[in-house]
Amino acid sequence: MEEEKEVLKERVLNAIKNRNASELREIFETIPNIDIAECLDEVDDAAVFLYIFRTVSSEYTSDFFAELTADQQELIINAFTDKQLIELLENSFADDIVDTLEEMPANVVNRVLKACPADLRKDVNNLLNYKENTAGSVMTTEYLDMKDTLSVKEALKIIRTRGKDAETVYTIFVRDSKRNLKGTINLDDLIFADEDEKLGDIMDLDFVTCNVNDDQEEVANMFKRYDLNAMAVVNNENKIVGIITIDDVVDIIAEEATEDIAHLNQISTMDEPYLKTPVFKLVLKCAPWIIALMILQVFSTLILSRFESAIMSFALLSVFTPLIMDAGGNAGGQTTTMIVRAISLDEFDRGDFKRVIWKELRVAFCIATLIAVFVFGWIMFETTVGIVNVKDTIKDVSTNLHVELSSIQVQLIISGLVASTLFVTMIASRLFACTLPFFAKKIKLDPAVMCGPLTTTVVDVISLLAYFFLWKFVFAPALGLGAFF
Amino acid sequence: MEEEKEVLKERVLNAIKNRNASELREIFETIPNIDIAECLDEVDDAAVFLYIFRTVSSEYTSDFFAELTADQQELIINAFTDKQLIELLENSFADDIVDTLEEMPANVVNRVLKACPADLRKDVNNLLNYKENTAGSVMTTEYLDMKDTLSVKEALKIIRTRGKDAETVYTIFVRDSKRNLKGTINLDDLIFADEDEKLGDIMDLDFVTCNVNDDQEEVANMFKRYDLNAMAVVNNENKIVGIITIDDVVDIIAEEATEDIAHLNQISTMDEPYLKTPVFKLVLKCAPWIIALMILQVFSTLILSRFESAIMSFALLSVFTPLIMDAGGNAGGQTTTMIVRAISLDEFDRGDFKRVIWKELRVAFCIATLIAVFVFGWIMFETTVGIVNVKDTIKDVSTNLHVELSSIQVQLIISGLVASTLFVTMIASRLFACTLPFFAKKIKLDPAVMCGPLTTTVVDVISLLAYFFLWKFVFAPALGLGAFF
Repeated sequence: MEEEKEVLKERVLNAIKNRNASELREIFETIPNIDIAECLDEVDDAAVFLYIFRTVSSEYTSDFFAELTADQQELIINAFTDKQLIELLENSFADDIVDTLEEMPANVVNRVLKACPADLRKDVNNLLNYKENTAGSVMTTEYLDMKDTLSVKEALKIIRTRGKDAETVYTIFVRDSKRNLKGTINLDDLIFADEDEKLGDIMDLDFVTCNVNDDQEEVANMFKRYDLNAMAVVNNENKIVGIITIDDVVDIIAEEATEDIAHLNQISTMDEPYLKTPVFKLVLKCAPWIIALMILQVFSTLILSRFESAIMSFALLSVFTPLIMDAGGNAGGQTTTMIVRAISLDEFDRGDFKRVIWKELRVAFCIATLIAVFVFGWIMFETTVGIVNVKDTIKDVSTNLHVELSSIQVQLIISGLVASTLFVTMIASRLFACTLPFFAKKIKLDPAVMCGPLTTTVVDVISLLAYFFLWKFVFAPALGLGAFF
Repeated sequence: MEEEKEVLKERVLNAIKNRNASELREIFETIPNIDIAECLDEVDDAAVFLYIFRTVSSEYTSDFFAELTADQQELIINAFTDKQLIELLENSFADDIVDTLEEMPANVVNRVLKACPADLRKDVNNLLNYKENTAGSVMTTEYLDMKDTLSVKEALKIIRTRGKDAETVYTIFVRDSKRNLKGTINLDDLIFADEDEKLGDIMDLDFVTCNVNDDQEEVANMFKRYDLNAMAVVNNENKIVGIITIDDVVDIIAEEATEDIAHLNQISTMDEPYLKTPVFKLVLKCAPWIIALMILQVFSTLILSRFESAIMSFALLSVFTPLIMDAGGNAGGQTTTMIVRAISLDEFDRGDFKRVIWKELRVAFCIATLIAVFVFGWIMFETTVGIVNVKDTIKDVSTNLHVELSSIQVQLIISGLVASTLFVTMIASRLFACTLPFFAKKIKLDPAVMCGPLTTTVVDVISLLAYFFLWKFVFAPALGLGAFF
């Protein structure tokens, strides 16, 4: 991969150095634009790009431009004459221009907007105004809509003349004379149809639309659900204002998944490739979460501090504290992850919350039983083979009460305590963890953002309380040591 | 949503009960198939489905069939006459049939294969033989390929006659007389082109292909990278054997992301929607990981057990053990997550490992400094306001050495110890966590599967060792307490 990139780079730069126009054109005709753009990603010489734009057909260069880095785009725009800039813009789609402008300084934005033909400028301005991550912000305004009274023959003629300016001609949007969307037609159905049929008679009526303000994640889920190529975006009066095409949706799906992955693992949204994210940004994405989690951990610290005397009297308690906290955290994290992902993929209908609780209750009970049995045996093993040393006195430091025990008694006590703690913890933490994402959704917070840190914090508290309370109120009294506070 | 579903269900079932064929047809014409299939998801009466298949045009019912549950599909196949089964199969695509068959018992599979027309049966058999998650297993064999000597007019004629049997007509694959793939043409370019031009003259030469054995994740990354609608799948002799279309890729991208999310959070692959996964399967997906992590935790337990006397002499150590382990685990987890996701999205070229290490080194140093400064202040605060109680004697229980200290001295010691531990831990755990995914990839293991459990385990060990070693070799000796083993 790396070597191919170097070879291609050399070939492109040589063609430019030798002013070999036919070689350069052949490269653009036979190699995908993004590969060419990527092999040039460290080039910052405007002359190189000016020669490419002068030599290669605009059919290739406008896509090529969209694949360059923001710095390179800025360099080129600044080096272009107004005439060259207008030519580039005329061959670009409004949504690509918006993507470019979002990375540019104000003076470049102004120059580009001035150079835009009036129609395009209006579209670009509109798109710039939609809130990030809404359907409006990802839609494009170049689509083909036709009246339902047109014939197939007329429609194909329109596609031939106006189609090149549209983002897709694979889906045609059919409207009545009042501009209400009535149906859609796929290009293949037009081709299969008789020339004289009216669009109104052959259009699909089972189309779906989204609102400009819908979240892009919902839009992506609709594309997946309905296997769409393109979807109309309507405003609050139900008039079509733009379309979203499947190639944009592919990026949205990957983006939304990356966001969930990041939030579930305590990172702020990763919106750029790792290697392109500056160091200080990576620090900002990670450090605040670690600090926030430390602050939230104050509750665990408080519990541990209050039970210090219990630990001092029976040091084995502290040896197994991390095991209990980790197991609880893992169980809670598993549940949160499954539910958050299912919510992202829009798997739940209203009323499914009860079904989830019921399912988790059964799953949690099985897992809790399994884990309790396992951990009992495992700690018996660890204490028998000497991974963990066992002392035979348990002593209440404040009251000087103490009991002498045989090793096997201590082993049974600590194994039983950890096993019963984990039984309680597994059930409580899974139930909490499956409730939280629904609660987050109810109060309109992103479940992934809220559940990452909160699950850990609350589950830690549950685990520690279960551990020390079981010791204080069940196990210690049974040994005649009742006063461990 | 839930209510709409109920309303639709009633409407469908009423139409069937009243034998109202025109109402039923209207429902299928105006409402997406998947919505109808979903509202009927609890219906297990074969008569209902038989009436639908008899009444509604096969244009709708073959897609509708693909959306039903496996149990319903089996019910219908068993209720169908051979003639009805053949009709259904003739209207289905090979890849959909394969998806259905993969869920069926052997006798149903045999009956379906027997009913398939010979061509289709060959395709289905081929597809059934490709390894799961390869390009071959998701491709379809119904595509249009044409010779490069055809004219545009002839090509359009072929599309009109043969296009309905192809999964897509939006991309036409152009081959020479030896069946080697020479180029691709998008349907819109055919429509824009002059009728008499030859395909060979107007085809795109910058197409990309994948091999039947490529992993579906790589295929999805290529679709994203090159904004494709369809891609040719070639065999080892570079001949085209099938195509993959964008609607399948949309599902693959979501599937692969779900897999990464699951593995990074210690769950086995989630391949079905949460509510449709049986309880015992959920238990199997979760419990083994928790048990495996407990077993791996033996190293932490060993360290904690060896340092029990250190804890007994200075109980504050155990109060902050969870904080140190959690912070280390979170930092390592953040790094692993970012790197694993970047690998999944194919962001790295060969040679990028060094760039990652260098970047992580800088990020880790900044985060470590920030966190150390913060945690020093935070523990000073916790010990000052009484969230954590401070005792003023530190005593070596084995040697009876002890030092009397003022509260502020103890505060400075524990804050300094935790801060310096975290400084070391943050750097070590991030560096380890960014190396591990590359190592996993090198030895051809799924980075997400390997890194989830291993990062936690190793980082826990790093944190604990740093904590107790700094205490034993730096802080305790400075206080005149040098013998804490």
